[in-house]
Amino acid sequence: MQRIYLDNAATTPLDKEVLDAMLPYLTTHFGNPSSIYSYGRETRLAIETARKSVAGTLGAKPGEIFFTSGGTESNNSAIAASVRDLNCTHILTSAIEHHAVLHTVQHFHTSGLVSVSYVDLLEDGGADYEHLEGQLQELSNKRKKCLVSLMHANNEIGTLLDLAKAGKICEKYGAVFHSDCVQTVGHYPIDLQHLKVHFISAASHKFHGPKGVGVLYVKDGVPVKPFIFGGGQERNMRAGTENVHGIVGFTKALQIAERDYLRDSTYIKGLKEYMMDELKKEVPHVSFNGDAEGGLYTVLSASFKKTDKSDFVLLNLDINNICVSGGSACSSGTDMGSHVIEALGKAEQYATIRFSFSKYNTRREIDIVVEELKKFI
Amino acid sequence: MQRIYLDNAATTPLDKEVLDAMLPYLTTHFGNPSSIYSYGRETRLAIETARKSVAGTLGAKPGEIFFTSGGTESNNSAIAASVRDLNCTHILTSAIEHHAVLHTVQHFHTSGLVSVSYVDLLEDGGADYEHLEGQLQELSNKRKKCLVSLMHANNEIGTLLDLAKAGKICEKYGAVFHSDCVQTVGHYPIDLQHLKVHFISAASHKFHGPKGVGVLYVKDGVPVKPFIFGGGQERNMRAGTENVHGIVGFTKALQIAERDYLRDSTYIKGLKEYMMDELKKEVPHVSFNGDAEGGLYTVLSASFKKTDKSDFVLLNLDINNICVSGGSACSSGTDMGSHVIEALGKAEQYATIRFSFSKYNTRREIDIVVEELKKFI
Repeated sequence: MQRIYLDNAATTPLDKEVLDAMLPYLTTHFGNPSSIYSYGRETRLAIETARKSVAGTLGAKPGEIFFTSGGTESNNSAIAASVRDLNCTHILTSAIEHHAVLHTVQHFHTSGLVSVSYVDLLEDGGADYEHLEGQLQELSNKRKKCLVSLMHANNEIGTLLDLAKAGKICEKYGAVFHSDCVQTVGHYPIDLQHLKVHFISAASHKFHGPKGVGVLYVKDGVPVKPFIFGGGQERNMRAGTENVHGIVGFTKALQIAERDYLRDSTYIKGLKEYMMDELKKEVPHVSFNGDAEGGLYTVLSASFKKTDKSDFVLLNLDINNICVSGGSACSSGTDMGSHVIEALGKAEQYATIRFSFSKYNTRREIDIVVEELKKFI
Repeated sequence: MQRIYLDNAATTPLDKEVLDAMLPYLTTHFGNPSSIYSYGRETRLAIETARKSVAGTLGAKPGEIFFTSGGTESNNSAIAASVRDLNCTHILTSAIEHHAVLHTVQHFHTSGLVSVSYVDLLEDGGADYEHLEGQLQELSNKRKKCLVSLMHANNEIGTLLDLAKAGKICEKYGAVFHSDCVQTVGHYPIDLQHLKVHFISAASHKFHGPKGVGVLYVKDGVPVKPFIFGGGQERNMRAGTENVHGIVGFTKALQIAERDYLRDSTYIKGLKEYMMDELKKEVPHVSFNGDAEGGLYTVLSASFKKTDKSDFVLLNLDINNICVSGGSACSSGTDMGSHVIEALGKAEQYATIRFSFSKYNTRREIDIVVEELKKFI
């Protein structure tokens, strides 16, 4: 029985084109990029070409792009640098950030280095910008240097942040602004030169690139030190022999995403809308979380009235080779444990499933999933 | 013209068997290991099987093995944890450690969190154990909690540390002991259950595995917190979606290293000895750094009297498609900048070249390199 994979917000299959781009760096082109002889020069060139390409796609300068081991390291780096190097003593975030942000913030909080507050959320999970501004104003009056960390798109419910708007508010009050863009880089055009953001994080396995590689964008002139110390790699900002095949894979995946954006995003949005329509038709009392119409086109979070059977819905879908999750990957397969659904007050009475789509999914797959769902909801 | 690659201490070509083991995880087996449905279970199983295998090879328990993004992250993690979680207020290291250790130590020193001292080195670059013990005794008298960080094999000159001896000294004075084993894991049998070491670091690209993946060993019961915060991966010790193909590659490379150890180590040692003999015969005034006979069998560090031509020897070798380095990868291609050769007092009067060998090298290659060297030395 063919598997149906509707959990692309957890991770995505590697694009064949990406693997082909990576393979030379897993075979013949193996030199250490820090070595200056021929083998080293060809991998060094691959990395610097990759950096230029990524910078071009994101509207950044090559010097603003740092390759890391993934989105989590990027988030950790940005937050650690804000506290340690930019003297932030308060972090303003939201209750529905990814754990890579929340647990890092928590660490600095329990270490006594920062105070923390959370922005109010609207019903769709979006940030209350007035509350954000009000808090920043207050903190600014108290002369507290503040880091704002708000994700571009929520990974469970898909609600989008207006990066331009949030950035302007942060700038007005002199706050450092970091955005976890792990769910949006590779899925939306992002033009960093026109955004007032100091740090963004990205991970290639969310857009058909390899696992184990990410990007941290650091705005030009923001004086930060490395998160990982050692050799002079990444212009002294991220030590360690570069994951060359990973960097090449990240970049190829982003190039494909940019090239095929119109076609793929239209197609995937169509899948999501089709599934919404089918669910509304076929499943009683379904409701959608987040900003289902205007949010991330790859993610559909649906809540169903709890029934005797609904506790076993994910298990039964799995038995039928259908891969979806209850929340993020951390809490998939279970209806419990999503801090996002909890924060939205929907954990008690509803069974929530996150469906997330990619260019490889089909309407036929959605039909099968909806058929299966009807048996348990 | 075929390239001759004698810089295997910088990085090694990926073994074809390793790539074959990785490929399923770059194609069909792409699930997020944190997802509990079928796709997730197969990658979770791959990781836990890998962990058991690595633990078995190193004489450790699976729960003591954590996968990281490489040797540098592992070194940073061990040192950060020692300072932050184990309350070490002094670090005792050596002047010829890798920068991944030295620069991290420096960071904690300039942050005011630790004092630092260096163990005296013998002429061959080996640690003076009496000096180590004397310092630890003194620090222990002052009730200073101490981290000792000494590498198992020096990456430039190959001198080996007696891990058992150093471990016993550390234990005697209650010191935490970390050893950067990046040059020895995959090249020597290491039996951690019989060593008094709290942390070791490893990186697979030094033994024909992929770049971008490493291991941190943390002795059972040592109460450390994560270096990178976020999801619950690696039993809450190293957040971030796992680099599954990297972890599988690390493990396959280590399995091959263990399987072929006798054959490969004998062969590579033979290459090194052959090169020493040829150099002694053919090149006047050559001398060898470190413990050339008893040290790391993959590394030969040779010093030549400086001449008019010797400044250009690396450049000329490169032109002739011969890849060697002046020191570590960070300083390869140049005679300047090796803090190791500097610490040994040989930077002024000598041109130093590090030759480092793998199972893929041949005596014929060494003949060609020695022929070329004769032209410039």
